[in-house]
Amino acid sequence: MSEKIIDGKAIAEKVREEVRLGVAQMQQEHNYVPGLATVLVGEDTASATYVRSKQRTCEQLGIRSLGYHLPADTTQEALEQLVAELNANPEVDGILVQLPLPKHLNEEAVLNKIDLAKDVDGFHPVNIGRLAMKGRDPLFIPCTPAGCMRLLEETGVNLKGAEAVVLGRSNIVGLPMAMLLQKADATVTICHSRTKDLKAHLQRADVLIAAVGRTEMVTGDMLKPGVVVIDVGINQKDDPTAKRGYRLVGDVDFESAKEVAGAITPVPGGVGPMTIAMLMANTLRAAEIGLSKK
Amino acid sequence: MSEKIIDGKAIAEKVREEVRLGVAQMQQEHNYVPGLATVLVGEDTASATYVRSKQRTCEQLGIRSLGYHLPADTTQEALEQLVAELNANPEVDGILVQLPLPKHLNEEAVLNKIDLAKDVDGFHPVNIGRLAMKGRDPLFIPCTPAGCMRLLEETGVNLKGAEAVVLGRSNIVGLPMAMLLQKADATVTICHSRTKDLKAHLQRADVLIAAVGRTEMVTGDMLKPGVVVIDVGINQKDDPTAKRGYRLVGDVDFESAKEVAGAITPVPGGVGPMTIAMLMANTLRAAEIGLSKK
Repeated sequence: MSEKIIDGKAIAEKVREEVRLGVAQMQQEHNYVPGLATVLVGEDTASATYVRSKQRTCEQLGIRSLGYHLPADTTQEALEQLVAELNANPEVDGILVQLPLPKHLNEEAVLNKIDLAKDVDGFHPVNIGRLAMKGRDPLFIPCTPAGCMRLLEETGVNLKGAEAVVLGRSNIVGLPMAMLLQKADATVTICHSRTKDLKAHLQRADVLIAAVGRTEMVTGDMLKPGVVVIDVGINQKDDPTAKRGYRLVGDVDFESAKEVAGAITPVPGGVGPMTIAMLMANTLRAAEIGLSKK
Repeated sequence: MSEKIIDGKAIAEKVREEVRLGVAQMQQEHNYVPGLATVLVGEDTASATYVRSKQRTCEQLGIRSLGYHLPADTTQEALEQLVAELNANPEVDGILVQLPLPKHLNEEAVLNKIDLAKDVDGFHPVNIGRLAMKGRDPLFIPCTPAGCMRLLEETGVNLKGAEAVVLGRSNIVGLPMAMLLQKADATVTICHSRTKDLKAHLQRADVLIAAVGRTEMVTGDMLKPGVVVIDVGINQKDDPTAKRGYRLVGDVDFESAKEVAGAITPVPGGVGPMTIAMLMANTLRAAEIGLSKK
């Protein structure tokens, strides 16, 4: 039943290939190469790893990558000043401020300063506001939700009138995901830790987006046969046989769920690879918007 | 069973009385009176009636009302110029641009120009973006959804973990309502014209917000016993016994629904009176924000 498994690695490679071609075409036709500025504040190991991975993917696709690393005690003013410079820099098409920021910084205020047309992460309040409204389209869709939508599309899911359950309501996945599914005419229910009867909701879900960050909390017996499961969770589970003593698992118990689901993403290798690929697609789009203004 | 009927008129009067007292206190303590600027473009009869009604309520509560009426062929530039002047005017605390605008004007661009701190209608994309995100609070909540929340509060509904169905997904009611209920920890499902089995959703709803604009489409047999129904619909229904030949009814069939519901708003006299009352509350709040900066 391997066709059941949604191959995020392969689909992410397909997206990257599209971007690679788009970048090459832009270079040929306009003698211009898209540029992504990454802004890292402080020494958080995970954040540093993410930023490096984004930079490396840029290089692989022919996108210029400009890295900025500020100390952990950077002031709000200094960070906003850097954003202002990047806004003004014509060689910068996309600006990615790696989140979360150190606690003393006002995240929303920083995101608010990013030029809307360079907001490749899609977290500018105006982009989110547009995502939340009918008849208005954000310039950029946040990368992980955009990746989930692409996975659904590649799986051939018809969202019109589908019953969709979003489990989790984070700003970076759950809430924008709910808005995207709703815009695609699904009937969306947002479930969360306060939801009283999660199983009842799952029993009627044609599509499940699990993004709650709780190890394998959804099991196969809770699902409706044929459901398409997109598992955004990345949790560490103890595993003495693994080198590090743990392995990565999703919010869904893959083994039992795959017996019931019509299609399901594995963890890792499902949603994970999509996020950076969609960031690259957003960066190419930002460069296209930039060129159309020049 | 008259206690079942949620008396929007009485609750709106309670809100107005709170505002009246707040305004009087502000005048006494700060020698300042809040000011609301209304901007009407064109000659739409309904819009003109709404604006007059808002102005009259201002006068009743001691709020200064400044009315601006632009011709139907006003340019985008002229309208944005007026908004800029009102932003700069220290005597204007709230700016209300009556929607919808004539088709040739860009509504989002106009709303975007309103000073966030004067956005008493709550439709600035940044206010909507904040409404759509966890941990961020809009300065102002759109008036009709805010009114519905107040009705639920006055009815003593516990939203935490409640099953809530929002029927309809308009920018001015359905979508912000879904976000507010979600922020209050309800499990929210957004139903709409593409929803396949509305009755199944209604059968589990503890709270129903009907805002779809279809005459009495929800009937008592579709509801779960004890549900709290907030009916935002205002539809004309033929009625030869009425003077005008029609009467106003909601999206819910009141007679059959009230036999099943735990509480229900009538139409008219339910949600209707709340909208302007909440606008007044927002205007007082805007003046408080303004004073805190002076």
